[in-house]
Amino acid sequence: MSRKIKTPKDSFISMTELVLPNDTNTLNNLMGGRLMHWMDIVSAIVGQKHCESVVVTASVDNISFRTPIQLGSVVTLRARVTRAFNSSVEIRIDVEAENIPEGVKVESNSAYFTFVAVDKNGNTITVPEVVPETAEEMELYNGALRRRQLRLILAGRMKPQDATELKSLFETK
Amino acid sequence: MSRKIKTPKDSFISMTELVLPNDTNTLNNLMGGRLMHWMDIVSAIVGQKHCESVVVTASVDNISFRTPIQLGSVVTLRARVTRAFNSSVEIRIDVEAENIPEGVKVESNSAYFTFVAVDKNGNTITVPEVVPETAEEMELYNGALRRRQLRLILAGRMKPQDATELKSLFETK
Amino acid sequence: MSRKIKTPKDSFISMTELVLPNDTNTLNNLMGGRLMHWMDIVSAIVGQKHCESVVVTASVDNISFRTPIQLGSVVTLRARVTRAFNSSVEIRIDVEAENIPEGVKVESNSAYFTFVAVDKNGNTITVPEVVPETAEEMELYNGALRRRQLRLILAGRMKPQDATELKSLFETK
Amino acid sequence: MSRKIKTPKDSFISMTELVLPNDTNTLNNLMGGRLMHWMDIVSAIVGQKHCESVVVTASVDNISFRTPIQLGSVVTLRARVTRAFNSSVEIRIDVEAENIPEGVKVESNSAYFTFVAVDKNGNTITVPEVVPETAEEMELYNGALRRRQLRLILAGRMKPQDATELKSLFETK
Amino acid sequence: MSRKIKTPKDSFISMTELVLPNDTNTLNNLMGGRLMHWMDIVSAIVGQKHCESVVVTASVDNISFRTPIQLGSVVTLRARVTRAFNSSVEIRIDVEAENIPEGVKVESNSAYFTFVAVDKNGNTITVPEVVPETAEEMELYNGALRRRQLRLILAGRMKPQDATELKSLFETK
Amino acid sequence: MSRKIKTPKDSFISMTELVLPNDTNTLNNLMGGRLMHWMDIVSAIVGQKHCESVVVTASVDNISFRTPIQLGSVVTLRARVTRAFNSSVEIRIDVEAENIPEGVKVESNSAYFTFVAVDKNGNTITVPEVVPETAEEMELYNGALRRRQLRLILAGRMKPQDATELKSLFETK
Repeated sequence: MSRKIKTPKDSFISMTELVLPNDTNTLNNLMGGRLMHWMDIVSAIVGQKHCESVVVTASVDNISFRTPIQLGSVVTLRARVTRAFNSSVEIRIDVEAENIPEGVKVESNSAYFTFVAVDKNGNTITVPEVVPETAEEMELYNGALRRRQLRLILAGRMKPQDATELKSLFETK
Repeated sequence: MSRKIKTPKDSFISMTELVLPNDTNTLNNLMGGRLMHWMDIVSAIVGQKHCESVVVTASVDNISFRTPIQLGSVVTLRARVTRAFNSSVEIRIDVEAENIPEGVKVESNSAYFTFVAVDKNGNTITVPEVVPETAEEMELYNGALRRRQLRLILAGRMKPQDATELKSLFETK
Repeated sequence: MSRKIKTPKDSFISMTELVLPNDTNTLNNLMGGRLMHWMDIVSAIVGQKHCESVVVTASVDNISFRTPIQLGSVVTLRARVTRAFNSSVEIRIDVEAENIPEGVKVESNSAYFTFVAVDKNGNTITVPEVVPETAEEMELYNGALRRRQLRLILAGRMKPQDATELKSLFETK
Repeated sequence: MSRKIKTPKDSFISMTELVLPNDTNTLNNLMGGRLMHWMDIVSAIVGQKHCESVVVTASVDNISFRTPIQLGSVVTLRARVTRAFNSSVEIRIDVEAENIPEGVKVESNSAYFTFVAVDKNGNTITVPEVVPETAEEMELYNGALRRRQLRLILAGRMKPQDATELKSLFETK
Repeated sequence: MSRKIKTPKDSFISMTELVLPNDTNTLNNLMGGRLMHWMDIVSAIVGQKHCESVVVTASVDNISFRTPIQLGSVVTLRARVTRAFNSSVEIRIDVEAENIPEGVKVESNSAYFTFVAVDKNGNTITVPEVVPETAEEMELYNGALRRRQLRLILAGRMKPQDATELKSLFETK
Repeated sequence: MSRKIKTPKDSFISMTELVLPNDTNTLNNLMGGRLMHWMDIVSAIVGQKHCESVVVTASVDNISFRTPIQLGSVVTLRARVTRAFNSSVEIRIDVEAENIPEGVKVESNSAYFTFVAVDKNGNTITVPEVVPETAEEMELYNGALRRRQLRLILAGRMKPQDATELKSLFETK
């Protein structure tokens, strides 16, 4: 039986959150941990929609936090699948924040989460393939292999020398 | 004026959390986002203790989530500084989980967070140096440069070819 | 000075929430109060975007809760302005819920919230006008007067006999 | 078998809440959505007591929010049944708020919620009748039919022309 | 200037809470810590009402937790002042719980909290006297001295030999 | 069969919490009720570890709250068993708080909680004995009997005259 095919648009989601006092540190800025919590929820929902099953967080790629997000800001998280592997799917989250009464758009950030699809007993299942449609989606699709090799190396499950996609990055010539 | 010097032991912290219903997904396992939220809090406290100032999350390295942690488990997070840079500090968090009434130790995980130290106006300040004492602390100290280069590359702020520490990993010779 | 003009699309927002254990009653269904809390947050954000100021909830129209929404469902709230009055704006929220692993789309609901725009001292300010673009937006725009009269009557601030828009509904002839 | 009979006093409840930082908007006033959440909880408990069963929120009537309630205020919600229908019950909630250290009684508000009584499988069940005792309870009892017709019209389940109780309101004579 | 005089009835409060999933342990019973949190809030409000000022928790007397309170139960906390000292006031809280759909009244419990009244700078202020009206209030008023001596001994601020009220309890004759 | 034997060190736990806005009163200090909630969680975990079973809070001894703990402080709770009885165990919690950026160590507090060990049906079970190792642990072990008598008297389950350990405290000679 051939695998189901879906586009990134099919499971795309936008989530909006308001930065409340308990989400902030003593400088009245959003704590990184709360933002990651939101990233996990929005991408888990996208993972569920794409895989049509329960999904569990498998890994998170490097995230850098640049501009602080103030108390009272509106945070918008947009998440979409980039590429599916056998039983897992990579999801990219883009974050924007806006302090509307102050008229300041304060932030632009992104992250990659990977989820594994499981059935009700927690066993992994095969997930639908991702077929990119736009140029941007194609680029994200192509980069996914390189990010996956980096993840496997960092998790100690692949030797750097075998990471053919990644190695080319370090070639000086 | 010479920089202050502190050991990892000086700011080491252990935090314990109980997995409650709202922390879990539909399989009754701890959500990755909640665990990252706890990791951020415990490492921010360690960062505060080492830097003796407010600290803000600057970046998080790749994290993989292996074994699921069940509802009712006790999660222990141990965090310590590995190395200081000018105004930032890298912190390693080790996570263990235990379902005590079931008698199962369920998890072992680790992560690296980087924090920037700031004064009350949010300006970066110089932080105390970290002086490793044990063999394990020395190894973490040495690896910190390599992880920093990887972070800079992934954030687009260093060219892969300039990452001397990291490059050696990929040399096949 | 003429009032600023904006379309419903300019401030449209979609918010996604996951139904967690603490959001549910003893039948494991989403509590009405939690759903209203989410409705208030999403429509306050839309109000902020349209008015470019802080907004405060002025009133909520009748809401009926039809199909129960199960624990673990994904709730999507879509909110848009329908019409602006002097210093207030009416917002319509449409709610959908989906239990993805079960493959059930469980709910379709709607509500109207009214917000007043205020400056930093809490004084009311004039808000931009709403210009409907689609046929559906036009219908919502036209119905807003009738709903407003009903609100004023129910709040005891208009006599039923003066509610010209509303009265016509009750004419039998 | 004749239906059980109970008075409003039998299930009356008073609930007290403290306005904490996360309950407030950027003006430090209680958010409408949080107040509705509390209204839902207190009236659900009254519904449970009257019906001696699980109850689910069926609808909420128009609510207007007048005076802002400040951070640190004590909010008192008093809820009582007004009238029972076959398997549902209407409940009125009166809200008062007081900023005690400031010596300001800040608010007076009211709302009507309707709940349906269900058994453990979620099937509707017959509820005890409400017998009003005081003049105020009698007035609430009599108004309940009119409010019910308005609800049915607004939910599209009754034609305005058939709402005999409600129509009389609009007759100019 | 003579001190203001108030009765227990003047500041009496009843608070109702619903036991939600996050309030329970793995046996689905209310955690003791959550109940103490509610006790503290209800008695702080009573303290505020009696003292007409901000109050801070000074001490809690021994509490024993007898019957477990199940998930979904309604918990009613009734709090009233028993006696005032110079700048502090003792408050008694009585707790009842009821699982309404199951038809079980599950609990009866009580506790004593002591609060200190402070002005906006945190300095202690004189509080109104408590004048008991009923026989039960009189008994609580009289017992307050004995409980106060026990508190002072347990806090190491009074020698047991000087606790005249308390000593008599231990006299075997 | 002889009872299992364990030391206080075997189940010792340290928990760290950050004081967030929702944990504070209007003076921006930690509420006593939240601190008791944390005390209950940390000591329940210690109880679980010692008893290797589910434990439920049986009682809390007098607690006094001395110095206020400010918003943004780091609170450290250290908990250890002092003595086991048949099916219950006494646990001592020591609390310290530190406002790190301000450089102030603000608090030192302690409390005793007692937990009963139960199996999955809620029936009490025999718990391992506690064998103190240090002089401090020995002193806590010895004081436990006296505290237990006080608890039994206060719960009305022992006559003061029979509290041999406690009586000696009140002897003047």
